[in-house]
Amino acid sequence: MGKGRLEAFSDGVLAIIITIMVLEMKVPHSDTLASLQPLWPVFLSYVLSFVNIGIYWNNHHHMMHAAHRVNGAVLWTNALLLFWLSLVPFVTAWMGENHFAQWPVILYGVVLMMAGISYYFLAHCLTGLHGDDSNFTRALGKDEKGIISVVIYAMGIGLSFIHPLIGFGLYVLVAAIWFIPDKRFENKEKEE
Amino acid sequence: MGKGRLEAFSDGVLAIIITIMVLEMKVPHSDTLASLQPLWPVFLSYVLSFVNIGIYWNNHHHMMHAAHRVNGAVLWTNALLLFWLSLVPFVTAWMGENHFAQWPVILYGVVLMMAGISYYFLAHCLTGLHGDDSNFTRALGKDEKGIISVVIYAMGIGLSFIHPLIGFGLYVLVAAIWFIPDKRFENKEKEE
Amino acid sequence: MGKGRLEAFSDGVLAIIITIMVLEMKVPHSDTLASLQPLWPVFLSYVLSFVNIGIYWNNHHHMMHAAHRVNGAVLWTNALLLFWLSLVPFVTAWMGENHFAQWPVILYGVVLMMAGISYYFLAHCLTGLHGDDSNFTRALGKDEKGIISVVIYAMGIGLSFIHPLIGFGLYVLVAAIWFIPDKRFENKEKEE
Amino acid sequence: MGKGRLEAFSDGVLAIIITIMVLEMKVPHSDTLASLQPLWPVFLSYVLSFVNIGIYWNNHHHMMHAAHRVNGAVLWTNALLLFWLSLVPFVTAWMGENHFAQWPVILYGVVLMMAGISYYFLAHCLTGLHGDDSNFTRALGKDEKGIISVVIYAMGIGLSFIHPLIGFGLYVLVAAIWFIPDKRFENKEKEE
Repeated sequence: MGKGRLEAFSDGVLAIIITIMVLEMKVPHSDTLASLQPLWPVFLSYVLSFVNIGIYWNNHHHMMHAAHRVNGAVLWTNALLLFWLSLVPFVTAWMGENHFAQWPVILYGVVLMMAGISYYFLAHCLTGLHGDDSNFTRALGKDEKGIISVVIYAMGIGLSFIHPLIGFGLYVLVAAIWFIPDKRFENKEKEE
Repeated sequence: MGKGRLEAFSDGVLAIIITIMVLEMKVPHSDTLASLQPLWPVFLSYVLSFVNIGIYWNNHHHMMHAAHRVNGAVLWTNALLLFWLSLVPFVTAWMGENHFAQWPVILYGVVLMMAGISYYFLAHCLTGLHGDDSNFTRALGKDEKGIISVVIYAMGIGLSFIHPLIGFGLYVLVAAIWFIPDKRFENKEKEE
Repeated sequence: MGKGRLEAFSDGVLAIIITIMVLEMKVPHSDTLASLQPLWPVFLSYVLSFVNIGIYWNNHHHMMHAAHRVNGAVLWTNALLLFWLSLVPFVTAWMGENHFAQWPVILYGVVLMMAGISYYFLAHCLTGLHGDDSNFTRALGKDEKGIISVVIYAMGIGLSFIHPLIGFGLYVLVAAIWFIPDKRFENKEKEE
Repeated sequence: MGKGRLEAFSDGVLAIIITIMVLEMKVPHSDTLASLQPLWPVFLSYVLSFVNIGIYWNNHHHMMHAAHRVNGAVLWTNALLLFWLSLVPFVTAWMGENHFAQWPVILYGVVLMMAGISYYFLAHCLTGLHGDDSNFTRALGKDEKGIISVVIYAMGIGLSFIHPLIGFGLYVLVAAIWFIPDKRFENKEKEE
């Protein structure tokens, strides 16, 4: 019931988020190679966010593929996830333009942590809907990666008060953990 | 006939509206936490509009799911709804940047009221097409929430002439009323 | 063959065109009603373009619904149509910001005329693919409206050299002609 | 498995890239024909990028249509392709605003060459997944056009150090080579 359109709407929002971020990279007025140099932090910030949104799309794709049904709670936790992800272009630009300064790095982490918590809620709404004993729930398992990510984000936020690069490094670590696609659902799909 | 593509086009437009609104939150040049403070009204404005567009998507999703057919009148009332919703990023930014001043709050209400009226037209075009005795029409019922919303918006517009925060409060009230997903269609879907 | 994805891609592009045009309406810094007044030509320009893109989506929807197949020529004439329509936000903004001055009105007409010619090419590629004796070709008929539109656009461009408002009036006339949905395909769909 | 949603997400991203590029053509404040003249290099740059993105969409469309399955590697090489293509609006604007100066032309070539290499990876991930003896792999053949494109891009980048217009000419040549739709998959589709 309505799963297809939820996927389509989420795809649309994620596709727009991932694409409009590039608009924050302001085109330099000069034509020299040197004029690109100040853009490096903005570009690095863009790459990290592109990978993060790509990871969310990928995992969302696998999770929704395994789901058989959606309900009102799923629609709204999905909207909550999209809300936090919609703030990614803003925090990406703020972090990039300020060369990974403390507060921008902290806010970037807060937005990603909230997205992680929303994703966790979404997964658990789907588990509740499908039942503890369903194929979906067995495929999802304990969702350790989701919990670990949120914990690392929280650590990254805290340690950014010492030095923002520690925070940034931990955000990259979370992306690296998730970069490996979620085998749980992929395996389940193969079995079907 | 063509229902799928109407849904896809509407999803696309709603996904873009909900996402480009974030571009109106201008990234501050300073990296201090204090530099974010002037953005609070813009952010609050963004949250309200995100919730409103989310509600429209949600209800549109449920209503179109229950519909079996569309015709020219449905396509054009749907376009009218999308037209008014396409103005939401503009009025959201105007209201946020001017800290909920009188005229921006009034215009925000006018745009949402017109969207509400368009949605009402769309619902009634679909009712006319499906017939008074159809499952669709029974599921839609008297559409009290739709009528109440338009009335509250009109009140909000009028009372903003006394103080804009009364208007803003009433717009939040409408969002709260709709936040609960439309049980009518959801129940009907379960029966099928 | 591939018709679904052509529709999806075209829907995506049209949805983005229709939505990003609103970004050209710059939010005024003042909160007075008077500060909105200079936006009237931009708004009027936006409304005309919204209606025009809506008409193209509507007719494209009906025509592709009737089509059974696409080939390389259809993909490229469709891309040509999308190219001209992608310039609509630019000419809309130029025309609106310059209060319907001569050259902006002429260029607006040129872009819409080129879009009209591209649509004509697209229709005829589809006719060629389906054969003269197909249901598709019978439904399309002589495509008088398409030819008339291009002629009126050409007249509008020419008469704008006398006064741009004559041109603008003729563009509105074309929109009015097309506003009535294309009954040919709708009837054909009913017969099926 | 999941092919439909991969196509939908890619379509969304490509549709947004192709459409937001037009936002880089800044609307002139004057209403004279002469005020459009400085936009010619930006427009020419836009046309080339529109054609290039159109070509990628077209070939992606044909290749994914022939594919029967996707896996994690396909999802990520597809994301890599979208990443490089997402930089096209940036390099298009930089090249156009600087009237095809040396470094912008070189960077434009680098981004397109990386997109070409990513497309090659994507094709070969799909070949690996479908097996050497599959219909898919037979349809793809040796992918000479893909390899030739990357070689011409590399030549264009190198020769831009002599004169950027040689580079630009070679990029146009690649577009011309691909403009002819990929007959391999089209023929295969007809046989099915």
